[in-house]
This record gives sequence, C-alpha cells and structure tokens, in this order.
Amino acid sequence: MKIIIDAMGGDNAPAEILRGAADAVAELGVEILAVGDQKVILACAAEHNIPLQGIQILQASQAIEMCEEPAKAVRTKKDSSLVVGLKALAEGQGDAFVSAGSTGALHVGTSLIVRTIKGVKRPALGTIIPGGEKPYLLLDCGANVECRAPMLNTFGVMGSVYMNKVMGVESPAVALVNNGAEETKGTPLYKEAHQLLKANPAIRFVGNIEPRDVPSGQADVVVCDGFTGNVILKLTEGLAKTLMGQLKPIFTKNLATKLAFLTVKDGMKAFKKKMDADEYGGAPLLGASRPVIKAHGSSNAKAFKNAIRQAMRCAEMDLSGTMERSLAALAAQSEE
Amino acid sequence: MKIIIDAMGGDNAPAEILRGAADAVAELGVEILAVGDQKVILACAAEHNIPLQGIQILQASQAIEMCEEPAKAVRTKKDSSLVVGLKALAEGQGDAFVSAGSTGALHVGTSLIVRTIKGVKRPALGTIIPGGEKPYLLLDCGANVECRAPMLNTFGVMGSVYMNKVMGVESPAVALVNNGAEETKGTPLYKEAHQLLKANPAIRFVGNIEPRDVPSGQADVVVCDGFTGNVILKLTEGLAKTLMGQLKPIFTKNLATKLAFLTVKDGMKAFKKKMDADEYGGAPLLGASRPVIKAHGSSNAKAFKNAIRQAMRCAEMDLSGTMERSLAALAAQSEE
Repeated sequence: MKIIIDAMGGDNAPAEILRGAADAVAELGVEILAVGDQKVILACAAEHNIPLQGIQILQASQAIEMCEEPAKAVRTKKDSSLVVGLKALAEGQGDAFVSAGSTGALHVGTSLIVRTIKGVKRPALGTIIPGGEKPYLLLDCGANVECRAPMLNTFGVMGSVYMNKVMGVESPAVALVNNGAEETKGTPLYKEAHQLLKANPAIRFVGNIEPRDVPSGQADVVVCDGFTGNVILKLTEGLAKTLMGQLKPIFTKNLATKLAFLTVKDGMKAFKKKMDADEYGGAPLLGASRPVIKAHGSSNAKAFKNAIRQAMRCAEMDLSGTMERSLAALAAQSEE
Repeated sequence: MKIIIDAMGGDNAPAEILRGAADAVAELGVEILAVGDQKVILACAAEHNIPLQGIQILQASQAIEMCEEPAKAVRTKKDSSLVVGLKALAEGQGDAFVSAGSTGALHVGTSLIVRTIKGVKRPALGTIIPGGEKPYLLLDCGANVECRAPMLNTFGVMGSVYMNKVMGVESPAVALVNNGAEETKGTPLYKEAHQLLKANPAIRFVGNIEPRDVPSGQADVVVCDGFTGNVILKLTEGLAKTLMGQLKPIFTKNLATKLAFLTVKDGMKAFKKKMDADEYGGAPLLGASRPVIKAHGSSNAKAFKNAIRQAMRCAEMDLSGTMERSLAALAAQSEE
C-alpha cells in the first residue's frame, strides 16, 4: 500500500505533514510518496529530526495557497504539489491521495485530474463529525453549494457505502436534513430529494432529520446540499468553541474552582478526545475514481497520520469501486 | 398598554400561560386580554391559584393543535384562540399579540388577518439567540423556507430596526450567513443578496459571516433564508443540549466530582442563565403591521412573561411603524 501525500498543503506544512507521514510509516506499515519541493522537504526533515525511511519524494516546485482561486490555481500551477500529486494518483503511482491544502483546489483538481466514478459529476465532501451517541458522516460539506435532487440521492448512496466500508457500520441509517419530520417539509429541492431517497433500494433511508437531532448522531449518514452542510459543519465547530470558551472562566475563577477542575480533568480530557475531529482523520472526496482525502487545514501530525490511516482503509476496501457498482445497480434499476 | 395573549397555545397552556400573564400584570403593570375558552380558563386559574386581576377574557371555543396544517387550520377554525386573538389585534383591541401555539398557523394567520407593512409580503420569524459576546437576532428562522434576494435585504432592515428599537443596540451590525467571507461566495441567491445588502443605506452591513462565527455574537443581526435559519436555530439548540449532556456524567461520576461540581455550581448556573433563550422572550414576526410575538412552544410562565415584556417594548417603540418608514425610505431611494 502506497499513499501519496501533499507535503506542501496546510497551515503546518511541511513539518507536521512529514511528521504525520513518518508516524504512519512507523505505526501503520505504509509506504509514502511525498509530493513537494525536495530541497524544502529534506531541510525540514533534517531540522525537525523527522526520519524519511519509507518516504519517497516526488518533485513539485510550486504550492497552491489557501487564498488562490481554485480553478485558476489548478489550471496554472501545473507543477504544484497538489496537481502533481493528483496526477500521480491518476497514473496509479499510489493507492490514495491526502492533502491538507485548499479544499476548493483539491475538489476542482480531483474532478479534472482523477475524474469521478460513473454517475457522479462532481465529488462530494464528506466529514465525520463526533456526535452524542456516535460519529456521523455529513455530506456534502461545501464542495457543491448548489445541488439538484438526484445529487442528494447519490450522496445518500456514497455516504452509506463509506460508513459501511470505511467505518464498519452495518446497514447505515441515512437521513435527509430538513426543517421538519414530515416528507412535505422543506424547499422543492428537499421535497424531491426525500422522494428519491425514500424510493432508493440501495440505502436504509430513515426519513428527514431535524437539525436539532443531527448532533446526537442518531443517523449515520446526514445528507444535505453543500451550502447547508457547510453551515452545519462550521456552526458545529463554532458553537463547540463558544460553549467551551464560556466554561473556562468558571473553572479558572479561584483556587477552589481550579482544584475542582483537577477532579474532573480526566473526564474532561476523555470528553475532549471524543469531540476531537482530529481523531477521525480527514474529509473524503466521495465519488472520486480513486480515494482522495482532504485533511483539515490546521492538521497536526496526529490528524494527518489519521487521515493517512483513513486513506489506507478507503483503498483497502475498494471504496470507489464499491460506490461505482452501487450506483450502477441503482441506475439499472431505475431504468427498468 | 394592553397585550392580547393566546391562552390555549403551547405545550403548557393554559396554566403556565396564565401564570406568566398574571406575573406580567403584577411586575410590568400591563393589561392582558386572554383569548380562549372562558370556562377552561376560569377552572385552570382556580385550580392553580392564579389571580386574574388585570386579565380580561375574550371567548374563543376552539384551539389550533401543533400538528394541524397551518393554512387549513386558520381557514377552518374561525373560533380558535389564535384566529380570534389576531382579529382582536387587527381591530385594535390590544397593542400586540403573543402566542406559544403553532408557528406555522401564527405566521399564516398574521399574514391574512393582521396583514404586513408595505414592502413585506410575508413576515419573517426572528429569534434572539444567546451568543458568546452578546445575543444576536437570527432571521428568517423558518417562516419563509424559500426566499428571493430582495427578501433577504428586507430582513436586514427589519432586523436592524428590531435590534435598535427593542434591544437598544445602536447602529446594529448586520451580516449575511455565507460559506466564506468573500462576496463571490455562496449560491446565486446569496451572491445577489450580498450586493443588495451592501448597497443598502438603511443598515450597517458588515459583510458575510461564516457559520463558525455566528455563535460568538459578533454580528447583531444575522440574515439568511428560512431553511438555513431553521438549521442554525435548531442545530444551536441540539448541539448545546448534546454538549451539556456529555458533561453531566463527568460531574456525577463519583463523590469527589460531585463535590467539585458544588464549587463551580454558581458559575454554571450563571452560564446556564446566559445561554437560556427563555430570558429573551419569544420570536417576533417581523414585518407584521402590528406586533406579533411567537413564544416558544414549551414556554413556562417565566418565558411567557418575558415574551409579554418584549411585546410591550415592540408596541412602545412603534416597531411596525418604524420598519414601514425605513422600508419606504429605502424604496424611494432605489426608485430615484
């Protein structure tokens, strides 16, 4: 198994990316093809004492910045680590690609270079979010801000295959975000999507899920358009941060509260770990013809290593192939 | 000042509604016109020892249930507390109307019976949500699941007037929910709305707000379509509940953690109060020609009393008139 990584993408590149890759080699027994400027990579590894055993370097002289217009960046920066890495994946030089760089550029680049499986026009961005009962997969998280109903139906299939194959959930419960439980709720897009999902034999559709029930994790796959998914993902992050920020002054008020905190420290630590998205690696670009994983832009070594683990699992389970077969069966059925 | 209330609406009607009304009479010096079945109201007041001084009863023999189809319920239940109450408001029998009943029926009924101010087709549902820094007004929260860009622009004006007049915020910051700070972000609806809000001289538009920044309260007015607003409102509720539920077992684990909790109890209580939406009363139906307030369906006496206080303030500050003048000035300007 060989995973291709974008050594230059992300806020903490290349040091944390390389460290995560080195940890993956040591702990997971994987080979790495690190794409980036060889000189920079070697200097960084030397400076931070990161062992490069098992890590091969594929030269790319450019890097795509977060602020660049995605389509333009992919078109013009032919020698960027992201474009060179995706090309290497398309050519079969590795089994999956992981990048903590620009989501937009990765999405555009994946569509153009790696291509999508049959039945999928543009990949969807899925994210595993820690929930009250259990983690759930939210898609689309912002790759496709405008969606048509058949796309939402496809998201249901792709999400279901992902949760089954990669997360090991048997018969995942697929739910559609909506402003009410009744199937007549929502915009025309959501009404139509509900009917398509309901009639879809490839998934276990459990109906609409109201936004208040999303965080509990009662559904395994939560389907919505990319605009709404982006709201859910970012609001979840922001609200968790705001609430935790409100708790801090309560515990640091005086000596007694500080001592009190020591008592619950272990519990709080376990809670933080459970709520820590880094534990689940990155966001898969579902529908790509080969596995592409978007690691969080602020990934540290641990998060990047987990994203590599996730990429390995996607490749092992032949995620793209399984999805393609599911969608083909569905298309054949609806043509009958 | 006389506030008309729907005595039969809400999960805890009529007891908690009447208790809230009686507290409002005692504490706020307001007159109440309670709409509902006189027999039921008198029996309930007697059973729960609720004083009816200052509370006049307006007979209505029916009640609209939460599960009823809103438009049909308003059309067919002519003698429901909601319809009779809204008619009383339209006829000037009181200065504002407060109901904890069906949001949909209240929205439809307000449009049909109380009517909207010039320039507003259907009222928007605004909700004050506790934020990290300060509370903010979110609109639309679900009354209009489908919106056009000029509606979002009107929401900006109505929200700004509300925060200024009712919440006392000078020059409120108005922001548009979007999946990025750049004005080119979002769906066509959001791109167009951004341009309209930016060119709107009646408000202080501060640009797009990413969902992760919404909970901090850095904007006073957060504008979005009703589908998205419903997601933000309900997800905020659900996530706060999930996170607090995760903290509980940490504090109830053993004797030491229980003792620790005693130390931080006051702080947690203050925090809970700050995060308690009940403190802010109900959700105004902005754009109605007279003030209509939707109290939370699960309102207890305190929440309902606060909703009455809010209704009083809307009437005192001539909210509807001020909004109408702002919108008229805006319309005149754009015609020039």
